[in-house]
Amino acid sequence: MSDCLFCKIVNGDIPCSKVYEDSHVLAFLDIGPVNKGHTLVIPKKHYVNVFDIPEEDWISVMKSVRKVSSAVKKAVGVDAVNIMSSNGEVSGQVVMHSHTHIIPRLKEDGLKLWSQGKYEEGEMDSFKEKIISCL
Amino acid sequence: MSDCLFCKIVNGDIPCSKVYEDSHVLAFLDIGPVNKGHTLVIPKKHYVNVFDIPEEDWISVMKSVRKVSSAVKKAVGVDAVNIMSSNGEVSGQVVMHSHTHIIPRLKEDGLKLWSQGKYEEGEMDSFKEKIISCL
Repeated sequence: MSDCLFCKIVNGDIPCSKVYEDSHVLAFLDIGPVNKGHTLVIPKKHYVNVFDIPEEDWISVMKSVRKVSSAVKKAVGVDAVNIMSSNGEVSGQVVMHSHTHIIPRLKEDGLKLWSQGKYEEGEMDSFKEKIISCL
Repeated sequence: MSDCLFCKIVNGDIPCSKVYEDSHVLAFLDIGPVNKGHTLVIPKKHYVNVFDIPEEDWISVMKSVRKVSSAVKKAVGVDAVNIMSSNGEVSGQVVMHSHTHIIPRLKEDGLKLWSQGKYEEGEMDSFKEKIISCL
């Protein structure tokens, strides 16, 4: 994709702080980190997100996410990471090339992920059945 | 693990709203959803998080995460999901049995994921090199 920021990074047209690369996957530092060491893992081929990436490329990315997570933890000297992807504009996806964040977490870094909601009576069954029918 | 909530769910000792199951993986609705349809995907075997799960089980979970994400999107009728795991207490992990959240996202649901930080000059290279040395 000629106008895709991450394709330009894959092609070497835009530089990045690369931490890992294999034939299918590239991992590099996010330039706007939640905490320093915040890393992105992307497929080299252009896919938008989890909804269009083939299983094979998804697995390649996720194998690397697992390996790089441990390296980030050790390198940054933390005990915890969040692994996160936004899939679709409404979820906060800005670059429309599939990417997974590995975010090293520091005590009291101020990041609050979400508040829990709840179901009304009977609603949970209805959502369960709807999801099962779409699988 | 006899005192693990998710092991009890896997064993059927505690009920859940199951949406998917295979020999390695279970997926069920989060009882405290960010938005309705919020689903958890877990390995049936007890692992704490990304740091101790073997590659094979991680891949089984991630294959299911990909499939269930599309089902959640379709079932809930949204365009976007966040896929998220907390690994380690400091990252917000509460149940110490590896689990990945699939969160359907609605327009203006109020969930803000994070603010971007920044690196001082030269810091990015230093973090890059540290991570590479840990891989």
